[in-house]
Amino acid sequence: MSDVSEFDLATQVDGDGSAQIVDGWDIGGNANGGYLLAMIARRMIEVADRPDPITITGHYLSPGRPGPVQIDASVIKAGRRFATVQATMSAGDRPILQVLGSFGDLAEMEGGMAHVDGAPPDLPPIEECRARPRTQNVPVALMNRIHVDLRPQDTGFATGSPSGTAEVAGYFSFTDDRPIDSLALLLVCDCFPPAVFNLDIAPGWVPTVEYTVHVRSRPAPGPLRCVFRSRFVQNGCLEEDSEVWDSAGTLVAQSRQLGLLPR
Amino acid sequence: MSDVSEFDLATQVDGDGSAQIVDGWDIGGNANGGYLLAMIARRMIEVADRPDPITITGHYLSPGRPGPVQIDASVIKAGRRFATVQATMSAGDRPILQVLGSFGDLAEMEGGMAHVDGAPPDLPPIEECRARPRTQNVPVALMNRIHVDLRPQDTGFATGSPSGTAEVAGYFSFTDDRPIDSLALLLVCDCFPPAVFNLDIAPGWVPTVEYTVHVRSRPAPGPLRCVFRSRFVQNGCLEEDSEVWDSAGTLVAQSRQLGLLPR
Repeated sequence: MSDVSEFDLATQVDGDGSAQIVDGWDIGGNANGGYLLAMIARRMIEVADRPDPITITGHYLSPGRPGPVQIDASVIKAGRRFATVQATMSAGDRPILQVLGSFGDLAEMEGGMAHVDGAPPDLPPIEECRARPRTQNVPVALMNRIHVDLRPQDTGFATGSPSGTAEVAGYFSFTDDRPIDSLALLLVCDCFPPAVFNLDIAPGWVPTVEYTVHVRSRPAPGPLRCVFRSRFVQNGCLEEDSEVWDSAGTLVAQSRQLGLLPR
Repeated sequence: MSDVSEFDLATQVDGDGSAQIVDGWDIGGNANGGYLLAMIARRMIEVADRPDPITITGHYLSPGRPGPVQIDASVIKAGRRFATVQATMSAGDRPILQVLGSFGDLAEMEGGMAHVDGAPPDLPPIEECRARPRTQNVPVALMNRIHVDLRPQDTGFATGSPSGTAEVAGYFSFTDDRPIDSLALLLVCDCFPPAVFNLDIAPGWVPTVEYTVHVRSRPAPGPLRCVFRSRFVQNGCLEEDSEVWDSAGTLVAQSRQLGLLPR
């Protein structure tokens, strides 16, 4: 075994922006959108020369398949607190992902005024969540890399008994125990089953149009507690919001994505 | 009086991308962020050749002052349903706003699967909201262009009695009765007083780092019902979420922005 984590290997980008979409980070053959965002963000962090994504938005243009990609990133503005960077991931002439993000140093931002109206989702012990059934009919290769341990009451969709509430909550960790840093949060917020799977009207699949993550703190060690909700399914689209909390009870990320319903 | 609305005049962009930040759309001398986003989106709609912003994200790089600006917009991908465009607004060498958006046709997207978990904010009749006190000590020139009629219980911050809840709700309309279309929604979601003004810890001002709007439907005629909330103030940042509902009770937009606290 290498000392380098699978996530770090799968998201590495050379100095010229060349990279590889690695097999095994996909759902039914299409690379997970959070994985792709983390890969492109790794390059953006480098060109920004700031350690943390603070707010980052990706627009998904075509599916990411295993193989070589090119990442072109450029700094729009390097300010005192943040550097703003835009980046494109493409495979040959085919654009895959267009990203805009602002990067900073979360360690320097710690403290100050605080007001928290919320709490981590209420979850049973992680062992009670790990025993859940496989979630889908398609092979989910991604699930060999990460533990997504769902709250038992949210797993009904997998056995034909959706809960009726568009909510999914559970724990996240890497199977190789890689620490979860601000970069990994970009994966975390996109790797749970869609919350709408628990509606009776659940669509078969929900491709992401746009995905934004706000990183609000560097996570303390240990599994994360995550909750995903969709409230508005209409006119061919839905939003999915997440909150991600660390083991110390701190909100570490919020995300929202706009997903597309099949016509 | 011109037949062209003040909003349309203030957001016009020439074919070469030159435009003017117009005096009177500012708060204390800085152009409103939603106004700037609407201006740049008008150009993006043109290059996208699609009528509606579906999801659009702006990163604010420096304040917009009245005067000439240049907007450069380019299509990243023109797909079947959406065209994805990136754009920059700058004043001379100074970048003001960097934007990434996907554009489509909301009329073509109407109908299909629906699930709505929410409702418009409960507001008294608009007349009871219009009589509110001036909201701030700084001159709010913007408020001569638009009606932001706040729910009386949310106006305490203006008289030194914040409600203690980071929420602000009310009606939106243009003073010249311009119809509210998908472009105007980009203004709407950024023109209410910050919800955190109603916290006891309220900061003096909250510059926007990033602002994303999802346009979910074209509004029916009439004033909009809007609600803004902030739940997490920590580590120098806060998020503000909005929901915007039309007179027919349809959710027409959701927004989220990341704001910066003074150090």
